[in-house]
Amino acid sequence: MQFHLNGFHAGDPAIKNADPDHQWRAEFPSKVDVLIVGSGPAGLTLAAQLAQFPSIATRVIERRGGPLELGQADGISCRTMEMFNAFGFGDRVAAEGYQVNEVSFWMPDPDNADGIRRVGRVPDVPEGLSEMPHIILNQARVHDFYLEQMRYSPTRLEVDYGLQLQSLDVNTDDVDYPVTATIDDTNAGKIIVTRARYVVGCDGARSQVRTAIGRELKGDYQYQAWGVMDVLAKTDFPDIRLKSIVKSANEGNILIIPREGGYLVRIYVELDSLGERGGSRETTLEEVVAATQRIFKPFSFDVQDVAWWSVYEVGHSLTDKFDDVPDEQVGNRTPRVFIAGDACHTHSAKAGQGMNVSMGDTFNLGWKLVSVLEGRCGSELLHTYSAERQTVAQALIDFDHEWSRIMSAPAEQDAVTDIPRVQKHFVEGGEFTAGLSVRYDESSITASARWQKLAPGFQVGTRFHSVPAVRISDAKIVHLGHVVRADARWHIFIFSDLSRNRARLFCDYLAHDANSPILKHTPAGADNDAVISTCGVLQDPHHAIEFMSLPAILRPSKGKFQIVDFEKAYCVNHGLNNDAFDLRGIDRNQGCMVVVRPDQYVAAILPLDAYEELQQFFAGVLRTVASTYPAS
Amino acid sequence: MQFHLNGFHAGDPAIKNADPDHQWRAEFPSKVDVLIVGSGPAGLTLAAQLAQFPSIATRVIERRGGPLELGQADGISCRTMEMFNAFGFGDRVAAEGYQVNEVSFWMPDPDNADGIRRVGRVPDVPEGLSEMPHIILNQARVHDFYLEQMRYSPTRLEVDYGLQLQSLDVNTDDVDYPVTATIDDTNAGKIIVTRARYVVGCDGARSQVRTAIGRELKGDYQYQAWGVMDVLAKTDFPDIRLKSIVKSANEGNILIIPREGGYLVRIYVELDSLGERGGSRETTLEEVVAATQRIFKPFSFDVQDVAWWSVYEVGHSLTDKFDDVPDEQVGNRTPRVFIAGDACHTHSAKAGQGMNVSMGDTFNLGWKLVSVLEGRCGSELLHTYSAERQTVAQALIDFDHEWSRIMSAPAEQDAVTDIPRVQKHFVEGGEFTAGLSVRYDESSITASARWQKLAPGFQVGTRFHSVPAVRISDAKIVHLGHVVRADARWHIFIFSDLSRNRARLFCDYLAHDANSPILKHTPAGADNDAVISTCGVLQDPHHAIEFMSLPAILRPSKGKFQIVDFEKAYCVNHGLNNDAFDLRGIDRNQGCMVVVRPDQYVAAILPLDAYEELQQFFAGVLRTVASTYPAS
Repeated sequence: MQFHLNGFHAGDPAIKNADPDHQWRAEFPSKVDVLIVGSGPAGLTLAAQLAQFPSIATRVIERRGGPLELGQADGISCRTMEMFNAFGFGDRVAAEGYQVNEVSFWMPDPDNADGIRRVGRVPDVPEGLSEMPHIILNQARVHDFYLEQMRYSPTRLEVDYGLQLQSLDVNTDDVDYPVTATIDDTNAGKIIVTRARYVVGCDGARSQVRTAIGRELKGDYQYQAWGVMDVLAKTDFPDIRLKSIVKSANEGNILIIPREGGYLVRIYVELDSLGERGGSRETTLEEVVAATQRIFKPFSFDVQDVAWWSVYEVGHSLTDKFDDVPDEQVGNRTPRVFIAGDACHTHSAKAGQGMNVSMGDTFNLGWKLVSVLEGRCGSELLHTYSAERQTVAQALIDFDHEWSRIMSAPAEQDAVTDIPRVQKHFVEGGEFTAGLSVRYDESSITASARWQKLAPGFQVGTRFHSVPAVRISDAKIVHLGHVVRADARWHIFIFSDLSRNRARLFCDYLAHDANSPILKHTPAGADNDAVISTCGVLQDPHHAIEFMSLPAILRPSKGKFQIVDFEKAYCVNHGLNNDAFDLRGIDRNQGCMVVVRPDQYVAAILPLDAYEELQQFFAGVLRTVASTYPAS
Repeated sequence: MQFHLNGFHAGDPAIKNADPDHQWRAEFPSKVDVLIVGSGPAGLTLAAQLAQFPSIATRVIERRGGPLELGQADGISCRTMEMFNAFGFGDRVAAEGYQVNEVSFWMPDPDNADGIRRVGRVPDVPEGLSEMPHIILNQARVHDFYLEQMRYSPTRLEVDYGLQLQSLDVNTDDVDYPVTATIDDTNAGKIIVTRARYVVGCDGARSQVRTAIGRELKGDYQYQAWGVMDVLAKTDFPDIRLKSIVKSANEGNILIIPREGGYLVRIYVELDSLGERGGSRETTLEEVVAATQRIFKPFSFDVQDVAWWSVYEVGHSLTDKFDDVPDEQVGNRTPRVFIAGDACHTHSAKAGQGMNVSMGDTFNLGWKLVSVLEGRCGSELLHTYSAERQTVAQALIDFDHEWSRIMSAPAEQDAVTDIPRVQKHFVEGGEFTAGLSVRYDESSITASARWQKLAPGFQVGTRFHSVPAVRISDAKIVHLGHVVRADARWHIFIFSDLSRNRARLFCDYLAHDANSPILKHTPAGADNDAVISTCGVLQDPHHAIEFMSLPAILRPSKGKFQIVDFEKAYCVNHGLNNDAFDLRGIDRNQGCMVVVRPDQYVAAILPLDAYEELQQFFAGVLRTVASTYPAS
């Protein structure tokens, strides 16, 4: 956490100075830059990013009367936890939530046809997949963390509750505020009309924004009903504090998700055994409990208190495109309306993906909207949102289809090998479930994998897989991935060592060459890392490096007083198999640079002398601006 | 973090349900259980503990008009960080503060009489000393964390600002409210008279409470002046982000303490070189800066912004007793007035101990006051506060005397060996500086070290040195020391394995025997861990243990619904040299129990069959009460 750059300020450094000119105000403005419809995980992930930028006028409308108190979603994947780090609250979520460490599998007991027995216990997250854990925490608390971020941001952004979108019109002739939104203020009983540069529909499966742009959720409903309940229970089932999959011989299946706080547990129970009525909304809590008890036999399960329960049917659906531009118009205009989260994809809850993919959608969109609205990028960048996220959603639907089928399948279908099929499938899907299988295709913001061999452990198009390193200035061991914050900046990580002239030449080029992307794309008056931040990661042992001998770009002067930023220079952590070069297979001889997008994905791997390729890459994304950063 | 035991509650679980009958109210009460005078680190450490107990009416008065915004102290030792864990905010302090990893030493450059050169760089905290780091954070922020704890507690305790103690009278004939405090309400311009069961003076070096009980700070002033400043500076000194000790040939010495946020730095500079005037209050900021610059040569040091600065003289002083009972009356009556922190000991800032020892004082006193006021212990327990903490303060004064002398000594005195004396002394004092050298003498609350050989790594009388372990119910790796919270409970850690009948018999004894300290000392209707909590730490591999086969006391039912507490049973972490038995030298064959006090200190090491010794120990501390915990 860096603060006090421009002078000491008393109080909590997480509370940013309020920008006097761009504050959230009670009266709804007639014009906004971004109108977010819906304050679920997708809406708030976007709002928390935009709120950091006083230049961007953002409003969030929500038809509910107030903040969510009890959410349905609860799974937070490793990838989402990495993203929470970028917002600064990953550690707090980890401290409060339940950490999923192991998954246990139970199948019919061959010695007791009415009973179950444990057949396997596997790690939930494969070793080394992420530095962050898999966490379970009530969605409402995730909202709270985002709302705090917004409240503490320079714009002091708040959600407007009780505001229901009525209609949306896009007039593509209006280049500034093409979208007109009509909103029903249910508290005041009046209609608000506002014009927006961009509208983002995070308004759920029945999205009005989606309808307004003429898109549809297409898919299937399997009429496979599940009950779900958050309960306090007395039980002698030994794995009640482990994520567990239980398949009984004849009574159906259960998924157990222990909850935060050490006592509460979520039970998903298959209701097929209730027959036709199971699929209907008439199923009672008593029936859900009774079904659970039958499956748990010979173990007892006495529900003492029910925090929440519901019955739902598994459905899979997807929208073909996540913005308002028809395929045939992509060359002519750029998007003005986007949809995200449940508005574009629905699926079952049991792979624990829903909230995660929704937040991933708007983490992808957030920096793009910031970049366009701040003038760093042309608006054509916005086409990449649907292109990238629709593919992710399709993969999710495909995975979840298969997973739902295997989860719901009768136990006898699992017994084809020694290890039950459901367990085998779970282990194989570990990377997917952790949210780490996303790989964006080559595009304007993701380079080709031509130089992939220089660092096979940082796969181009996948998220930057963090490694620990030693910060040279203060000898602190930190995670390099945590350097990337939700602030819309690009990052160049230089992996090399000091004895290589190549790295020094590259640093000089970045700092001083007229063609350097930093000089070309950083606006006048801004710190030299305002758009692209550069970090060095050296192979040399920590004590062999003199801080002041580092290239200037790895110790840049910043802010009002031009104080050195001491958090750009790192070296490998030689202890305990933690050497970044080993962990990611980086070519020790050549080194390389890893270009990381603002959303933590690897944009490019390049040799350290690939100046031309680097320039071209950034020229394809960022606008050239007049820079005052000294070129000499 | 455990919550939702008695049902789900929406919102931040750190915010406890308010107790309707015992709330802080604006009007000052005529009677209080505890009156705390002063809201510095000592006062707030006490207030944050007492605030958790609705049965205790606590008030905190502070003569300042509002919370501290910029504090002088900033060093937070490993031991204090462990204590912060007990309050639940250790991780947040670590995330926000500067972490001291290495210390660098600079001495006159033999090749350049006017210059300095680095002669050594050593780890700040020896490996394995604590699981918590050494942190630097503005004292005002530490206050903020405590104030939040108080605000979120069931009693919603707030500090009463603008209230200045005028006088204090102790009438030992009044058994209920013997202390009468007269307070000047400087806001309202009126006098408040209140009667208290106990008064704790945390009111600094000029303590009025100390004066009221006729005690004196006795000591010496060395007239050794130092300047201190928190600044943003441009410098080419390479170790400006390391804690550094710099001794110049002729210009004096500097101590550098990097500050939170990555930019700010604190400089302590010896002012002897300014001659007589250096010791006076007339020294200017310009002179402090100029002295710094002379010592830093050949490096530049241009101050850009000054957050705070001061000049002070090193003094060492100590009060002979920390309560109001004269030695000759100890057998006749128990203390009613206590003093803590700077009110009883003052010393230099440069060993980074001041705030830490002050907080240690009231962390020691807090659980004792709670135990007496809740009726768990007799009031003679309160004698142990002064007995334990006066010794600690004496050790601090002795250490600081020596350290101040060595820090201030001319550089030539360091050059007696290859390694400068100041560096050698720093390394030798590592345990002290980390706050970990405290060892309480044998007393009613600290047993003899007779069975020390069963676990040499848990020294009786020292703080429980945390070890990682695997929680059996959910396979999470946790630190055992973090089980001990600031809640006035005792802990028995049972180190054994399941194959030993001895451990199982001991667990049965604890749960069911009429002489078990748990049965004897737990009040009717309370959970069986309300006074003494029992944890098991087994040698068996995690997957070899069936949770339901564990002794009942390691999976107790608690709360309104009698839900199992899943956080009492652990096994060793076999990975990476983390086996608790190896780390602390625990006898694998015999096992042992480790009794830990509410303030995290080891009270006793006993064999698992030492029922009689255990009973006697607890009988000497806790009152016998009627228990409803089933004895059969």
